[in-house]
Amino acid sequence: MPPLVTLTTDFGQQDGFVGTMKGVIWGICPTARIADISHQIPPQDVRAGAIALWRAAPFFPPGTVHVAVVDPGVGTDRRPLAARLGSHYFVGPDNGLFTPLIMDAVDRAEGVEFVHLNKPGFWLPKVSHTFHGRDIFSPVAAHLANGIALADLGAPISDPVWLPMPRPERTRAGWLAHVTVVDVFGNLTLDLPADQLTDLADVSFRLQGREIPGLVASYGHRRSGELVALVDSEDFIEIAIVNGSAARELGAQVGDVVEVSAGGK
Amino acid sequence: MPPLVTLTTDFGQQDGFVGTMKGVIWGICPTARIADISHQIPPQDVRAGAIALWRAAPFFPPGTVHVAVVDPGVGTDRRPLAARLGSHYFVGPDNGLFTPLIMDAVDRAEGVEFVHLNKPGFWLPKVSHTFHGRDIFSPVAAHLANGIALADLGAPISDPVWLPMPRPERTRAGWLAHVTVVDVFGNLTLDLPADQLTDLADVSFRLQGREIPGLVASYGHRRSGELVALVDSEDFIEIAIVNGSAARELGAQVGDVVEVSAGGK
Amino acid sequence: MPPLVTLTTDFGQQDGFVGTMKGVIWGICPTARIADISHQIPPQDVRAGAIALWRAAPFFPPGTVHVAVVDPGVGTDRRPLAARLGSHYFVGPDNGLFTPLIMDAVDRAEGVEFVHLNKPGFWLPKVSHTFHGRDIFSPVAAHLANGIALADLGAPISDPVWLPMPRPERTRAGWLAHVTVVDVFGNLTLDLPADQLTDLADVSFRLQGREIPGLVASYGHRRSGELVALVDSEDFIEIAIVNGSAARELGAQVGDVVEVSAGGK
Repeated sequence: MPPLVTLTTDFGQQDGFVGTMKGVIWGICPTARIADISHQIPPQDVRAGAIALWRAAPFFPPGTVHVAVVDPGVGTDRRPLAARLGSHYFVGPDNGLFTPLIMDAVDRAEGVEFVHLNKPGFWLPKVSHTFHGRDIFSPVAAHLANGIALADLGAPISDPVWLPMPRPERTRAGWLAHVTVVDVFGNLTLDLPADQLTDLADVSFRLQGREIPGLVASYGHRRSGELVALVDSEDFIEIAIVNGSAARELGAQVGDVVEVSAGGK
Repeated sequence: MPPLVTLTTDFGQQDGFVGTMKGVIWGICPTARIADISHQIPPQDVRAGAIALWRAAPFFPPGTVHVAVVDPGVGTDRRPLAARLGSHYFVGPDNGLFTPLIMDAVDRAEGVEFVHLNKPGFWLPKVSHTFHGRDIFSPVAAHLANGIALADLGAPISDPVWLPMPRPERTRAGWLAHVTVVDVFGNLTLDLPADQLTDLADVSFRLQGREIPGLVASYGHRRSGELVALVDSEDFIEIAIVNGSAARELGAQVGDVVEVSAGGK
Repeated sequence: MPPLVTLTTDFGQQDGFVGTMKGVIWGICPTARIADISHQIPPQDVRAGAIALWRAAPFFPPGTVHVAVVDPGVGTDRRPLAARLGSHYFVGPDNGLFTPLIMDAVDRAEGVEFVHLNKPGFWLPKVSHTFHGRDIFSPVAAHLANGIALADLGAPISDPVWLPMPRPERTRAGWLAHVTVVDVFGNLTLDLPADQLTDLADVSFRLQGREIPGLVASYGHRRSGELVALVDSEDFIEIAIVNGSAARELGAQVGDVVEVSAGGK
């Protein structure tokens, strides 16, 4: 099994930052496969980066090394971090980028380990103040991919920075949920897991003054232009417009509140 | 020869959908090389996806497995499909994404085979209603890349969905052609193959009220800003503005009609 | 060590041009790793392409083959070029795309070699007039990656086209520097290397009527919204707004002049 590395950043794809990271990784671990998860995280939006990585990482095989760099604190004393969460490895700034993945690992009683990356021998010889993705995180990920033990790369810690994640709130009628992701189609993912709804037939949603009764099985079960709610591919509730953009038509954004009328567990 | 897989979707690159597919593919076929063809097909535009894949696929070596996912019918009863067209494999929804490639294979008398993917043993264990690119098409592609026979993946069929493709119409003066692609430079590709024009010296084009006399060999043979017609890299007629954007200056779009005055075969 | 190839173009990622190049490369050199540096070079902007490649290429290991295609002269008599600069290889149109890399190699007294690619046996069998990235440069890069000697691919030349690059000018008070890159964050890189400033404590910058006193160590050392100057990750001076876009707030663009008050060597 050749080593696998993924990259999630807010670097965009115009400037060559991502290509540069691949050069560094391949210089140290020539056999790595490298997958881009996203480089279009909104600048400095750590929460959006955390959610994007959290959705994609579980679909990679055990042993994958995930690098995430959304790093407004680069060059300050924020710690560089590496972690093992179950069978996956994670490398990036200690600013909460891995919080939802840590929560899941803890929920599943998988082993977790964290190290403060403080051994410059595993970094590029010269470290800039503005691009630790290239100078620290890529080389460390490549050493992990080469089989170097996590514990060799830094000092063990147990207090990674914790990022508050959106959570639905119980109400008398059901829930107040929040839009967590607006995807490229303009579909709106909520922070409400479908398995929190006991009766999927008897549920309705209210967003931006629009009422959505019930859930459909998929987009193609309604006509183009209809506003629907459904269970998304990670089992969260999603609001969509069939063959259209719910985000654009409703003017909806990440953080918007959705009232859910439903029974719950 | 390590196995090759290509990906063509309307998923964009912001959300991690494409990275997730790569995780699934590499989990099943760790040695695959994976090339992105495009992830910026306009949402749900099956025809644009079909044309993008059709232009790129022939430049990949024999045995390549091409995954294409522009899939407004995901989660309905539209069939998941895999095909062999000559020496290449194709996997995606049965909605016409492969029509121009099938037409070419049939024209060249290459063998073609189609299967309805109906064997969940080759899919992810859990299949969502909204992301078959991840749950069905990626795993099937990875199994093909691993050498599993097409016939093992589903039931043979002979009636894949057929997508009407734009074609030029003969007129008294020559042709009515259509813009099929507007590329990143704003160049306009027509559905008129250059080999349909018998006399390349004696031809002219009319688009949005602008007249273009004759063909030039390449962009650099005219001055910046000039509107020209030429033979594109796949031997179709292309309208371009030298160092500019014909699409923007003419307000031209896919589907626009171009009058061609010319002799033809 | 598997062979490494990088790609830098103005092709964007919507049309499949880049994927097509990868198909051609893998058809000839199946074991190559391929890294995208950027495909969002502004159309026909050779200087922007030259700078993007120059910033990223040094972070790749020796032996890497870099393909760059920003090629307004495609199909004219501009020469196709391949070069060895120290331990790296470069392939693309002879229009100055490699000038800053050549300058660095010459400064470091590394060996340089250039060949005019004039041996069609190393190209695709059919060469279009509009897509030499696919038909000439990708196959040549793949042959280099396979270990074919540079000298076998064409005729030696010693006069590659030279592109004037921006350089800071000495003034009585210090320097007139220029914005060379506006990155995805809106940070502005200048053509002024930090090592030209003898006293980093006693320096100030003036841009679009705004005064920036001194240098900070990194973004996180000032509050969000503050305009700062710092040393960027390639040791050039950079102007930035903390957690914001200097380009947008100042209306700054590539080529803008920055007055630098400082001592210098």
